[in-house]
Amino acid sequence: MVEKKWVYLFDELDKVQSYVGGDWDKVLGLLGGKGGNLAEMTRIGVPVPPGFTITTEACNAYLEVGEKFPEGMWDQALEALHKVEAQAGKKFGDAKNPLLVSCRSGAKFSMPGMMDTVLNIGLNDETARGMVALTENERFVYDAYRRLVQMFGSVVLDIPDEAFEEVLDSFKNKKNVKADTDLKADDLKELTNQFKAVVRKHKGFDFPQNPLDQLRLATEAVFKSWNGKRARDYRRATKIRDDLGTAVNIVTMVFGNMGWDSGTGVAFTRNPANGEMKMYGDYLLNAQGEDVVAGIRNTEKIDNLANAMPGVYKQFIEITDKLERHYKDMQDVEFTIERGRLWMLQTRNGKRTARAAVKVAVDMANEGLITKEQAILRVTPEQVDTLLHPQFDLATKDKAKEDGQFYASGVNASPGAAVGQIYFDADTAEKMAKENKQDVIMVRPFTKPDDVHGMLAAKGILTSEGGATSHAAVVARQFGVPCVVGASMVRIDMEKRQMEVNSTVVKEGDWISVDGTTGEVYLGKLALTIPTLDEQTDLLTLLGWADQVCARPGIRNAPEGWPTTGLQVWANADYPKDAQRARSYGAKGIGLCRTEHMFFEQVRLPIVQRMILSETIEGRVEALNELLPYQRSDFEGLFEAMDGYPVIIRLIDPPLHEFLPSEEQLLEEVITMRVKGETKGLKEKEKLLSEVQSMHESNPMMGLRGIRLSIVMPQIVEMQVRAIFEAAANMTKKGMNPKPEVMIPLTGHVNELKYIQPRLEKIAKQVMEEKGVSFGYKFGTMIEIPRAAVTAGEIAEVAEFFSFGTNDLTQMTFGYSRDDAERNFLVTYIEEGILPKNPFQTIDRDGVGRLMKLAVDEGRKARVTLEVGICGEHGGDPDSVEFCHIIGQNYVSCSPFRVPIARLAAAHAALKYQKVEAGEAIPA
Amino acid sequence: MVEKKWVYLFDELDKVQSYVGGDWDKVLGLLGGKGGNLAEMTRIGVPVPPGFTITTEACNAYLEVGEKFPEGMWDQALEALHKVEAQAGKKFGDAKNPLLVSCRSGAKFSMPGMMDTVLNIGLNDETARGMVALTENERFVYDAYRRLVQMFGSVVLDIPDEAFEEVLDSFKNKKNVKADTDLKADDLKELTNQFKAVVRKHKGFDFPQNPLDQLRLATEAVFKSWNGKRARDYRRATKIRDDLGTAVNIVTMVFGNMGWDSGTGVAFTRNPANGEMKMYGDYLLNAQGEDVVAGIRNTEKIDNLANAMPGVYKQFIEITDKLERHYKDMQDVEFTIERGRLWMLQTRNGKRTARAAVKVAVDMANEGLITKEQAILRVTPEQVDTLLHPQFDLATKDKAKEDGQFYASGVNASPGAAVGQIYFDADTAEKMAKENKQDVIMVRPFTKPDDVHGMLAAKGILTSEGGATSHAAVVARQFGVPCVVGASMVRIDMEKRQMEVNSTVVKEGDWISVDGTTGEVYLGKLALTIPTLDEQTDLLTLLGWADQVCARPGIRNAPEGWPTTGLQVWANADYPKDAQRARSYGAKGIGLCRTEHMFFEQVRLPIVQRMILSETIEGRVEALNELLPYQRSDFEGLFEAMDGYPVIIRLIDPPLHEFLPSEEQLLEEVITMRVKGETKGLKEKEKLLSEVQSMHESNPMMGLRGIRLSIVMPQIVEMQVRAIFEAAANMTKKGMNPKPEVMIPLTGHVNELKYIQPRLEKIAKQVMEEKGVSFGYKFGTMIEIPRAAVTAGEIAEVAEFFSFGTNDLTQMTFGYSRDDAERNFLVTYIEEGILPKNPFQTIDRDGVGRLMKLAVDEGRKARVTLEVGICGEHGGDPDSVEFCHIIGQNYVSCSPFRVPIARLAAAHAALKYQKVEAGEAIPA
Repeated sequence: MVEKKWVYLFDELDKVQSYVGGDWDKVLGLLGGKGGNLAEMTRIGVPVPPGFTITTEACNAYLEVGEKFPEGMWDQALEALHKVEAQAGKKFGDAKNPLLVSCRSGAKFSMPGMMDTVLNIGLNDETARGMVALTENERFVYDAYRRLVQMFGSVVLDIPDEAFEEVLDSFKNKKNVKADTDLKADDLKELTNQFKAVVRKHKGFDFPQNPLDQLRLATEAVFKSWNGKRARDYRRATKIRDDLGTAVNIVTMVFGNMGWDSGTGVAFTRNPANGEMKMYGDYLLNAQGEDVVAGIRNTEKIDNLANAMPGVYKQFIEITDKLERHYKDMQDVEFTIERGRLWMLQTRNGKRTARAAVKVAVDMANEGLITKEQAILRVTPEQVDTLLHPQFDLATKDKAKEDGQFYASGVNASPGAAVGQIYFDADTAEKMAKENKQDVIMVRPFTKPDDVHGMLAAKGILTSEGGATSHAAVVARQFGVPCVVGASMVRIDMEKRQMEVNSTVVKEGDWISVDGTTGEVYLGKLALTIPTLDEQTDLLTLLGWADQVCARPGIRNAPEGWPTTGLQVWANADYPKDAQRARSYGAKGIGLCRTEHMFFEQVRLPIVQRMILSETIEGRVEALNELLPYQRSDFEGLFEAMDGYPVIIRLIDPPLHEFLPSEEQLLEEVITMRVKGETKGLKEKEKLLSEVQSMHESNPMMGLRGIRLSIVMPQIVEMQVRAIFEAAANMTKKGMNPKPEVMIPLTGHVNELKYIQPRLEKIAKQVMEEKGVSFGYKFGTMIEIPRAAVTAGEIAEVAEFFSFGTNDLTQMTFGYSRDDAERNFLVTYIEEGILPKNPFQTIDRDGVGRLMKLAVDEGRKARVTLEVGICGEHGGDPDSVEFCHIIGQNYVSCSPFRVPIARLAAAHAALKYQKVEAGEAIPA
Repeated sequence: MVEKKWVYLFDELDKVQSYVGGDWDKVLGLLGGKGGNLAEMTRIGVPVPPGFTITTEACNAYLEVGEKFPEGMWDQALEALHKVEAQAGKKFGDAKNPLLVSCRSGAKFSMPGMMDTVLNIGLNDETARGMVALTENERFVYDAYRRLVQMFGSVVLDIPDEAFEEVLDSFKNKKNVKADTDLKADDLKELTNQFKAVVRKHKGFDFPQNPLDQLRLATEAVFKSWNGKRARDYRRATKIRDDLGTAVNIVTMVFGNMGWDSGTGVAFTRNPANGEMKMYGDYLLNAQGEDVVAGIRNTEKIDNLANAMPGVYKQFIEITDKLERHYKDMQDVEFTIERGRLWMLQTRNGKRTARAAVKVAVDMANEGLITKEQAILRVTPEQVDTLLHPQFDLATKDKAKEDGQFYASGVNASPGAAVGQIYFDADTAEKMAKENKQDVIMVRPFTKPDDVHGMLAAKGILTSEGGATSHAAVVARQFGVPCVVGASMVRIDMEKRQMEVNSTVVKEGDWISVDGTTGEVYLGKLALTIPTLDEQTDLLTLLGWADQVCARPGIRNAPEGWPTTGLQVWANADYPKDAQRARSYGAKGIGLCRTEHMFFEQVRLPIVQRMILSETIEGRVEALNELLPYQRSDFEGLFEAMDGYPVIIRLIDPPLHEFLPSEEQLLEEVITMRVKGETKGLKEKEKLLSEVQSMHESNPMMGLRGIRLSIVMPQIVEMQVRAIFEAAANMTKKGMNPKPEVMIPLTGHVNELKYIQPRLEKIAKQVMEEKGVSFGYKFGTMIEIPRAAVTAGEIAEVAEFFSFGTNDLTQMTFGYSRDDAERNFLVTYIEEGILPKNPFQTIDRDGVGRLMKLAVDEGRKARVTLEVGICGEHGGDPDSVEFCHIIGQNYVSCSPFRVPIARLAAAHAALKYQKVEAGEAIPA
């Protein structure tokens, strides 16, 4: 039996690949991201310090059996170490020419700072002396040694870091120096001894002098850190699986602090802020990696290295070019120059801003480095979202900083910019927002479920405590409220109703500006900018490519007769100006025009109320005739804005009592008048109250509205259909090409449609005859009642199109009243993990989604040409857009602002599922 | 080509059977009920007057082509007529020895009085004279002739019957006689002439003298009468298909009025009122059939025929015995004795009361005439319903009639008895019922959709107008309110708020008693009797058989592991006394105990309110600890009553605000106090109001209740589970065998159950440990949220049983709020045929039912031992019980009063579907 291989040298990538089957993803799974990339760099000839990787399988095996190395692993590690000694020309633990190594964690997915690293392993009293002889740099050696003792002590031996920091501080006090760098070689030697004393005091044994003991214990520490609380919490928050394990990388130490011919740096192959095609980074000569990051010394721009070390720079540019071309993405590299020799310590795909992501993707596609499809997949819909959401632009923030408006910073918990007046409790926040119509920022030390109503009413949230997974952060993200949490410098005084940072006091009701994208807080009102699409040419290019992908016939592998292109993106728009914006954002139709919004306008509402309260049908029809011209002109504007594109107009949906004064208010007025004995106008008020009371419903969501109202009181929708077709006829006469689609809401039984639809179609035909024109049109229905989904096959025999009203469908499939659920239990459900996601934000695929899939399947079975879309809020949610693609819809319709996001999401879905057979199980 | 056969002689049944394939149902379809039975009697040797049947196919063909006899039909009829002539030894139209025939309609299903009949066809001036010569009975002949002219005139020639009646009345006045029987032969001859003049006057032509013309026109009239308005309305009301058509029976006339050796009668082979095994009927000598029915002469009891005509009586008893044994059911026969010779004119299965139906079925099974299974199928669940519903017993009604309390009668539109105070409009009726808690009878001339809220609030309904399909009748039946409509003698005066019959005035607020089963109305309060099951020994026997059928393993052809017996019947019971009743009615378990009902009791409600309003968890737990003993003792009583049977206890379901005062009421009080400047107690009231307002929900149906409440506030259900298990432990210690099953309501996502169920199971185990006893138990959930049905497979991995809450499942699948829907649109929907049935009464198989079937299938796939039942109101509805059987449930649970109905319905379903493979399409 061949012994299982737990350890791979960096130059053994071929063995790894033959073990995992060549799949790069599996290589990363076995070696971790860091180890995989070090091996890959080694393979393509990039100078990497010799080293080896102990696999994630070894880690899992170690943890499984109760923290014991699996059989053979340590022997393999020692063997690899010998080969590294040979490659480096040094010997681990050798008194004359000792090899030092680092021991670094490296999981498949980056978990920055969550697991352990130990540097300078191999130093002890003896090898330190040897190193001094070799380097003639005592200060360097003991600096390294004291760092090893501290790092080993805290990371491997679990001694609180403060124990070392205290010793260091009192030593510096004694020596009367401020910075570590002021310490002399002797000082560091003495400090090393004091650190060793700390180890002895805390552990009862000495700092291990045997380098192999150091290596073994460090390796174990890294393995164990996979299951540390920090790492587990991080994984839960970022949804990384617990069974992946971490690899351990043992790498020959190279030193950038061995003199002015040495140095170290980090760089991006392109600008990660704006995507510009230009090397971007910093370096320091005679310094260690952490010095660059810590910001103690001023770093040099990477360009300057060309002057400082022209040869090295040239080599560096060649290498990074090679890496970018090799990985086909912008690289984020770490390097060290040891005595004039360049070593690459790490490469990975660089993190970038949304703006940079778009530019890099488009540039690389234009350069031919990647395909357009790859470019599309490089940008997430969420990134497009941040590019289009209101934000504070950099100039505004820089100006504010100059003006001293910068106030605090914290964790960027939920993206977006918000400007508002601060309030310190949920009730006040809600009241100010709802009653006074103020823009509110809710400020709390931390939030609890009781605070949710205030949070939902606020434009932004700021807390002084908590992290990225705190209650405030979770709620804010789920409900899309910009939020900064854990701004710990902010002292909130609930008594005085104020907050304070360095004696700058902000009182309740004062204005602040919160940038949830960056975690910054500013005093006063910063200007919000709503980016327009026109200026973002790279984004326009990318979205154009996305549309091309979706429009490609055959991209969707669909059953006979179903659409074989990807999704179209339509928009929800009630007014012509919304429709214009939607069109400019790339919408190919209107998926939902809510006609009742038009009823609420000031001049119209009195007529609407007269219509509702009319005691005779004649009176009602008379009032409706007054409304007709208004509606017709609304529709004319819509048809004009969307000339040539379909416009779905939904007939009246809400219950009529929504157009009347509230019952509570009337009751209060009537009682007050009665008690005070006022009689003037009392009778009328009492009558109105009694009308309103007679229309009261226990559960209006499930009451007399939509098609039910149309059946009981058909006059309103008859007027609406007349207005729609008169408008379309007028526009046709003007040479335009209107495509009206009449949508009937709330159908639950096919007989409802059979009852009302023919009556309305008759009016449509009548109007066309009256006007002497003819144009295409459709009649269809919303699918928003569970029963409609279950009986969609029957309904499709009458309806020519379906539009999923996923807001109501979610409400009724879950039995959640949205008005109450969020406040009462939904937040608890999401916090406790009872619901993985907010179903009002992302379609619940297992429940609501299953009904949707069933409706599409059976609807198309009954009418193969059935047009299917979605007009709920989910239409702009990328995960939901993907689901709509999977189940074979024709289009998604969302708010105009989300159209670009949906366009990209639709292309992602088309590319991701282009080989999936329709009818296959829905991927989770 | 063989000519299609449209006409069959009574002795040609073999030809009919070879044409339709021998199936008796198809014979009836072709010949109609009357024709089929005449042929069948002929076949088995019962004396039937010669005749033939023109088929329903001929009728349909006639109607299809625009009222033309199909090719060959008339020739076949004439040919048959000749054969009848030969059999009868008379000749149609012969001057000497004329054959007279009747022409009778006869459809597959009895439609009494809905279609036409003409007697004495073949009489004209000439044959009349011949008949006189032959019979020497001029009076008899002209009586027959004048009847023919009148009947032919009104039925065939469409002359208003009044035209003849007026002539008859003025003739009798002139002759100064009262009864028709007082008219002499000459009078009748003269009357015949006057009737002929009526025909001439109305039609412009003479009464047809040609007997063949009479026969042809009469046949056409019968065909046409199938599509008459009366017949069509009747078919719509009774759900008989329109395409069946009627057959026409041409039968040799026999006469019971040819002297004292002649006679006629009707009889049932058993007593149709009580089922007693004893011939029951009446006869008259020297009389015609209609004389028996009309009640002009006092009829003789059938027993007396034994003395009057012993030979005939013996033959009659032999024949009826033979018929009952042949048809294996109680027969309703018509017979005529013509000059000492007995002729059977009709036999059919006799209509009977519910009581008789049960007794006849049980007796016949005991006699070995039918099987027990057939006996079960002979009684409908609806008949059992009438046997157990509150009713006025006969003695009470007889006494009331003696005392002059009988007031009016109308159409028995919706069964059941009701006693209440009358109100004349819906608003007042509803107000009196809801606010004053009065028993209300709503009285209206007729009802409209606006009246529905009053009708639903009433115990009974009375209208003076409208028939069995009027608005009032439809609504009342759909919602189970006893109702009498069309009591036309009642004059309602809306101004005076009173009603009057023959000057007996009843004023608004007075008491009346309404018997919807019989259509009778009484003055004052009649005693209602609730029949007990114990006294109804035949019913007990029948239900015992029904239980045996359901308990038979293998009766259900089910998938592997599923139950192969039929449904069990359990009951919904909240209190021990309900459970006792349920058990005495045959319930095999409690399917739903609603624990919150216990919270509303007077001593407990204040503790409940304190618990709800508590600001600390400690305060809440303290109040709950006070409630614990109450709940425990409730459960002890339940377990005792149901010893050995499962008891499903549902944890708290409603939203907490239901236990607090109403918001409106508090608001009114607070505003009043404020306006009046009263301060005492205002603060407390304002605080309570603000609490209640904070709990307000827009749609409480879909709000914070059920499992959601348990997750947000687990203390209540923790107390309840402790109470359940302490009670069960105590009963176990007393030697009983409690079988608690804890039901968690409103689950929509499996994670909800995963969150709460283990916490509760822990308490269960803890209590058993504390008490040192152990017993079996289950934890399960209601399936009442559409998402729960859709994801039942996941939920069954946690839940050990499902119980369909079909009330809420129907509400949410349809998106109907039951509180509002009935009033606002549901009645319109049922009236307009948009919904075929009220889905809150009978399970909507296509929508709600489909979700239920899916839930059972996928639930059992995940857990093959899953126990599945239903606890919604549908559990007592026979059609819904059948559906529960079809989809493979274990039991249905219903109100104790409906347990016997459900037991019979369950047996019906088991017998009806015993050969249906599970998984087959659900029959409509």
